[in-house]
Amino acid sequence: MLIYERVSVIAILIKNAMVYRENNTISCGMTILIEENKILDITTNTDIINRFYDTHRLETDFDVIDAGGNLVMPGLVNTHTHSPMTLLRNIGSDLTLQEWLFGEIIPRECNLTPENIYYGSMAAQMEMMRSGTTCFCDMYEPFEMLTKAVIDSGMRANICTAGLHNDWSTGEKRTYETFDKSIELFKKYNKYNRLNIFFEMHSVYLYRQEWLYRIVECAKEYKTGIHMHLHETIKEIDDFMALNKGMRPTEFLEEIGAFDVKTVAAHCTHLSDNDIEILKKHDVNVAINMTSNLKLGSGIPPLTRLIDSGVNVTLGTDGCASNNNLNMFEEIHLAALLYKGLYQDPTLIKASQVVDMATKNGAHALCDVPCGTIAKGSMADMIIVDLSAIHLTPVNDINALICYSMQGSDVDTVIIDGKIVMKQKKFTSIDEEKIMHEVKKIKLHK
Amino acid sequence: MLIYERVSVIAILIKNAMVYRENNTISCGMTILIEENKILDITTNTDIINRFYDTHRLETDFDVIDAGGNLVMPGLVNTHTHSPMTLLRNIGSDLTLQEWLFGEIIPRECNLTPENIYYGSMAAQMEMMRSGTTCFCDMYEPFEMLTKAVIDSGMRANICTAGLHNDWSTGEKRTYETFDKSIELFKKYNKYNRLNIFFEMHSVYLYRQEWLYRIVECAKEYKTGIHMHLHETIKEIDDFMALNKGMRPTEFLEEIGAFDVKTVAAHCTHLSDNDIEILKKHDVNVAINMTSNLKLGSGIPPLTRLIDSGVNVTLGTDGCASNNNLNMFEEIHLAALLYKGLYQDPTLIKASQVVDMATKNGAHALCDVPCGTIAKGSMADMIIVDLSAIHLTPVNDINALICYSMQGSDVDTVIIDGKIVMKQKKFTSIDEEKIMHEVKKIKLHK
Repeated sequence: MLIYERVSVIAILIKNAMVYRENNTISCGMTILIEENKILDITTNTDIINRFYDTHRLETDFDVIDAGGNLVMPGLVNTHTHSPMTLLRNIGSDLTLQEWLFGEIIPRECNLTPENIYYGSMAAQMEMMRSGTTCFCDMYEPFEMLTKAVIDSGMRANICTAGLHNDWSTGEKRTYETFDKSIELFKKYNKYNRLNIFFEMHSVYLYRQEWLYRIVECAKEYKTGIHMHLHETIKEIDDFMALNKGMRPTEFLEEIGAFDVKTVAAHCTHLSDNDIEILKKHDVNVAINMTSNLKLGSGIPPLTRLIDSGVNVTLGTDGCASNNNLNMFEEIHLAALLYKGLYQDPTLIKASQVVDMATKNGAHALCDVPCGTIAKGSMADMIIVDLSAIHLTPVNDINALICYSMQGSDVDTVIIDGKIVMKQKKFTSIDEEKIMHEVKKIKLHK
Repeated sequence: MLIYERVSVIAILIKNAMVYRENNTISCGMTILIEENKILDITTNTDIINRFYDTHRLETDFDVIDAGGNLVMPGLVNTHTHSPMTLLRNIGSDLTLQEWLFGEIIPRECNLTPENIYYGSMAAQMEMMRSGTTCFCDMYEPFEMLTKAVIDSGMRANICTAGLHNDWSTGEKRTYETFDKSIELFKKYNKYNRLNIFFEMHSVYLYRQEWLYRIVECAKEYKTGIHMHLHETIKEIDDFMALNKGMRPTEFLEEIGAFDVKTVAAHCTHLSDNDIEILKKHDVNVAINMTSNLKLGSGIPPLTRLIDSGVNVTLGTDGCASNNNLNMFEEIHLAALLYKGLYQDPTLIKASQVVDMATKNGAHALCDVPCGTIAKGSMADMIIVDLSAIHLTPVNDINALICYSMQGSDVDTVIIDGKIVMKQKKFTSIDEEKIMHEVKKIKLHK
């Protein structure tokens, strides 16, 4: 497997930028200096800018971008998806959860090959970058294919190793359980600088309880976190309570120490006040997947209650089979709109809060490096949004513009880890045509 | 004012089209024949196609489009907006309705000039066409500026003449009431083939009751329809009931005969069972404005109940100050998603039903000509959607693709009334740069 290695210092200077700052305001006419994979400065000081030019202008890897007054904002962070499920886009829509999952999705997933999964993930990552996402949290199998796709795409990702593995070497798909392989994969890939590796705790309903204990042990031993599905449906909570003397999954997971490590808990569609208290007490990061929850009929996540309780709320798209796209601007749009109507109060959830959920809150959940803001010392993960479109004119209010008017297709340029991965809507190192060709070739049979 | 006149027969042949048919299925490899402003045929019959070539190939206004297997679907129909409010995009977001309307919006609207309004409407129409809308229902003032913008843009529109007029000739903005002018405008513009003119009945709260009676009389006398706001907020219903012995606005409007003519009732966010029965009984067309209702905290319209009752449900964006865009794909997305989550039932509201709401149901509400479907004899209003984007790959299910994956930016070409108004994302007769320049020049002060 090819691991991309930097051969020289990379530097980028972005001039004439409207910069979206940490405090949710904008500064116009700024110059952003990027060295290696970090933001060195955001400045108008010509001495600093000239010194940067002098240091870097002779390097081949020195890029100068004229933002032309357009918006430079932190890349979006998608905190829960199953990237290869792009291949299952739009299959089984508008069916019951049972018909969708067991009748349409799983029978097709069983026929996927590791190569299919690589291309499915590459397609997902292209879609995410195109619509402004620079970092995402993935959960799928086989792990090696996901990491290969992340390494090839240039994205930043949080990926989790699962204890369940398919034996892909034989035609027959036999699932086996082992943590030895998960740990081996963790050790092998955890050093790679754009990857942060967690352990997967799929859910209390899919994993046997002895496994849940084992995953907590592993996360503690290897000083990393856990990515889990939590309280997505009422059924999952009821079933667990029936088997566990009325204990709720969140209460059980607290008891076994699952929240003592860094956790990304996806969904949290149904939470009691005590559940929320537990999540807050242990700084659990909640990944809200609003489109998916709506589309599958799971419910409406208690976003306002989570915010009021001070929980770190982030946004995810979930997989493409239950969304059916990976465009974070749609999640932003929904988060900003839905609760105002639901509770008939237009002051609920400010646009700036939603921008934070989709950027710095998400980065806080997924990354072990400073990320998610355009600030000195932060990782250089950012997007340049072309503000020339008619639907972005006039701007009037930048936070409202991002939440209510902006579309994924407005993203012009994407920088991740100090590298320009998409420039004027063209990928710099991905062969888009090849990926599209491979994805279209895949025929999914039940 | 320039009224565009056709000087020769216009013909368009679209080959290699994936056609979205009236019955919500697709036919691939089709040829669509357009003559003047109507669809002559959708066929694979080479004799018919050759005859069409023979008849038209020598004409200068004969266009041949190779759709390259991409989707040709009916243009979207936006059944409620206030087009010039693009100028107020993103102003006063996340405030209470009172602060927003009286503190931010109206004080700025008072300073708009007729020229501002023309450019605001042109910007709106550009945004609508870019995102696939071919026909819309407008409510604003002055009427002459809206119609001029529609004539210049090439869109199909339903515009209503109001009894309230500003005296734009003086610096002072003095509103006066007269129906003579409305009737004069109706007579002058009703002959124009892309315009359908209704009378405006803004709402029961803004218009005095004697006026409501007068509007019904006018609509009956001139054999046209009424465009109104109806039951947008609970306050509007409660206030009316308090003044009218507990009678609800819908009951009152039925009593005065407002529903005996064709009606587009915007919002209908709060409806009793009896309200819905009245709307159904009189074939009232309901324009749901989901984003606006959510954003302003007005509530969630009872879409499932309206559908179950057989009411003609259509979709609108409302004005840009309460949305804050005019992208009908976002309304489609919301309509398909929201109720599944709200009622925890993923089978509620099928994707194909939502496509109908956004196309043929809307056309039925607004137009006095056959429209809203790709069918023989229909007006040639259609869009070509580029399916090559990664977020539309693989297709798998066309209705789900349109509802859950498609974005406004996927629209490549727009044909309205048999004329190509946007070709490969470029407007054919609008000077986009000039409109943008004029819109950006407008400074809105309170």
